[in-house]
Amino acid sequence: MNDRKGVLVILSGPSGSGKDTVLSELVARNDDIRVSISMTTRKKREGEIDGIHYYFVDRDYFKKKIDEGSMLEYAEYAGNYYGTPKAPVDEMLRNGINVVLEIEVQGADKIRRMYPDVVSIFLMPPSLSTLEARIRTRGTEDEETIAHRLFIAEQEIRRADEFGYVIVNDTVTDAVEAFETIIRAEKLKVSRNKQIISEVTGNV
Amino acid sequence: MNDRKGVLVILSGPSGSGKDTVLSELVARNDDIRVSISMTTRKKREGEIDGIHYYFVDRDYFKKKIDEGSMLEYAEYAGNYYGTPKAPVDEMLRNGINVVLEIEVQGADKIRRMYPDVVSIFLMPPSLSTLEARIRTRGTEDEETIAHRLFIAEQEIRRADEFGYVIVNDTVTDAVEAFETIIRAEKLKVSRNKQIISEVTGNV
Repeated sequence: MNDRKGVLVILSGPSGSGKDTVLSELVARNDDIRVSISMTTRKKREGEIDGIHYYFVDRDYFKKKIDEGSMLEYAEYAGNYYGTPKAPVDEMLRNGINVVLEIEVQGADKIRRMYPDVVSIFLMPPSLSTLEARIRTRGTEDEETIAHRLFIAEQEIRRADEFGYVIVNDTVTDAVEAFETIIRAEKLKVSRNKQIISEVTGNV
Repeated sequence: MNDRKGVLVILSGPSGSGKDTVLSELVARNDDIRVSISMTTRKKREGEIDGIHYYFVDRDYFKKKIDEGSMLEYAEYAGNYYGTPKAPVDEMLRNGINVVLEIEVQGADKIRRMYPDVVSIFLMPPSLSTLEARIRTRGTEDEETIAHRLFIAEQEIRRADEFGYVIVNDTVTDAVEAFETIIRAEKLKVSRNKQIISEVTGNV
């Protein structure tokens, strides 16, 4: 019923909004949805697996990929490169797999320019106080870090209106269902079904 | 989770695409979706009920409504006016009801200008031969009429790309589910959730 190509989805949202939890549930429930794996130059930590958590590469290789234009987006944090290699994303899309990129709010712009039909979703905490509670539950940060994270989160939420859709993460199940609904509806967009229209009228 | 306002949906599609069947199933399954009732100056036929099948009014009343700007759209066929009164649609939308307007392909433009956030869906037969079979099953038309209807249908399908979404009506159940999916996804659009974003950041 739809064109075969997968849908490319950007997922952003403040730290503590529950992106990872929603994505692992989403991928577990849907064979045709995958999360793009980032490439990084940082050292592999204990328990991390190359090709699952990240593609671990050295600096020269990463720089070569940037120069070749093979990175969808990349950034440098704390002396390490992080980014999304373009080739595996394009291959999955061609094979009808819907690909989710988990990306910083600032990184979303670049992707939108390269893929005009990208679907962008902002995952929103139900309230700032819920977000604060979630960050505190992790129990790994001091007061100053928590305050700083909340400040950043509020800045990011103010940019939510640059996205196409917003999902308020009240419960993981509802958020995952909303995500699935958006992908299903996007596949019904006329812009993704030009071929079907031609086929029915016989102008293939 | 969403703003309270209902979503306005235009449904178009060639005669024989199954609009009426899909809409009656859709409305039966969803308390929050209603189909707008048209106003007409034509005589009431046996079995038709005022306020259910149409609002039956006289010519003077209809013309007054046009002059007042109270019609969303209207047209004259075979000497009778047919149109959509604006007030009941606006009231349902305000009350959070999603309203479907079943409208000719040509009428959709006017609605888009008045309601920029209208969602437009084109209901497509799986093929022209299926459409032909459906028209023949009705058994009420001669060869010339059938050929003419198929010609018109093909012209309309060529305009499907003016719509936002396309649903291929393979089975009624799948088409109804696709319709529900589109409405649910549309309610997650950032443009319909500005208030939620403000509430979370506390800038109400």
